[in-house]
Amino acid sequence: MSLDVDDDIRPGEIRTELPADFDAGLYFIGTIRTPWRKRADCPRNPREAGDAVSTIELDPRYAKALTGLDAHRHILVLYFMHHARRDLLVQVSRHSGLARGTFALRSPVRPNPIAASVVELLGIEGTALKVRGLDCLDGTPLVDLKPYLTKVDSPDR
Amino acid sequence: MSLDVDDDIRPGEIRTELPADFDAGLYFIGTIRTPWRKRADCPRNPREAGDAVSTIELDPRYAKALTGLDAHRHILVLYFMHHARRDLLVQVSRHSGLARGTFALRSPVRPNPIAASVVELLGIEGTALKVRGLDCLDGTPLVDLKPYLTKVDSPDR
Repeated sequence: MSLDVDDDIRPGEIRTELPADFDAGLYFIGTIRTPWRKRADCPRNPREAGDAVSTIELDPRYAKALTGLDAHRHILVLYFMHHARRDLLVQVSRHSGLARGTFALRSPVRPNPIAASVVELLGIEGTALKVRGLDCLDGTPLVDLKPYLTKVDSPDR
Repeated sequence: MSLDVDDDIRPGEIRTELPADFDAGLYFIGTIRTPWRKRADCPRNPREAGDAVSTIELDPRYAKALTGLDAHRHILVLYFMHHARRDLLVQVSRHSGLARGTFALRSPVRPNPIAASVVELLGIEGTALKVRGLDCLDGTPLVDLKPYLTKVDSPDR
C-alpha cells in the first residue's frame, strides 16, 4: 500500500522520524467511488469538486449501522488518504511557495492521514450512499460516517 | 487498553463480528487534558461542556507542524475514544430508549472510535494548545489537528 507514496521533498520542507509502532488500528469500512482516478485529477478542495456526485460503498457487514442516517441532509465522512506520506511537519505549497506547518494545512500529508468532509447526502440505496461534496481519489477507504449536527459542528453554535 | 471497555449490551442493540485484522495504523500524537476524569462526569456533547477550557498537549516530536495554526480562531480536533467498544451497529439510548444505527449517532461506540470536534483556539504556548469546546475524557489520545475552514467545513458554503 505504501508503494505509491510520494517520496519527494521540496526545499524548506521538514520531516520527522515517525514512531516505530502504531498506537491503535483502523478498520476500512467501505470504499469511496469518485470521478477522479489519478491524484493529479483531484480537485484541490471540495469547492472545486463542484456538483460532482460520489458514491460511498459501505461494507455490507455494517449495513444495520445506517439505520436512521437518511434523516440527515448533511453528513460527516471520515476517510483514510492511503497514498499520503506521514512524516512531513512543514510543507511548502507547490502553488504559493509558502511554508506552513502540517496542522495549519488540510493537506493529505499528516501523521494520521484522515480527512473529515461535510457532504450533502442525496440518498441511500442498500449500502450505497450518493453524496455531493467529496474531492478524494476514487478507491479511497472509508473510516466513519456521522450525522452533521449544526449545533455542535458549527463554530457559531 | 481494552480492559476498561464496557461490555454491556442493552435490549435491542445489535453487534457485529469485527474483522480479524486492522487495515491501517494510527499514531497517538498527543494527549487531551480536560476537567472530566470519569466517563460518567463527561458532558453529553460540546454544548453541555459550556465554557470549560481544555489543554491539548502535543507530543514535542510534532512541534514544528503547529507553525501557522495560531492564525485560526477555530480548529478541528480529531481524537481517539480509546475506552469505546467498536462492535455495535445499532445502539439504544439510555435516555430515550430509541434504537438507532451507529452511523446516525455521535456516540463514541463505532467501528473506528474517532471523534471530530470543532473547538475555539484560545492560545498556543510551545506544544500546549488552550481550547474551548471539547467534551472528552481527561487523557484522551490526540489523532490530528486541522484548521477549520468555513468555506469547506460549513454545509452552507
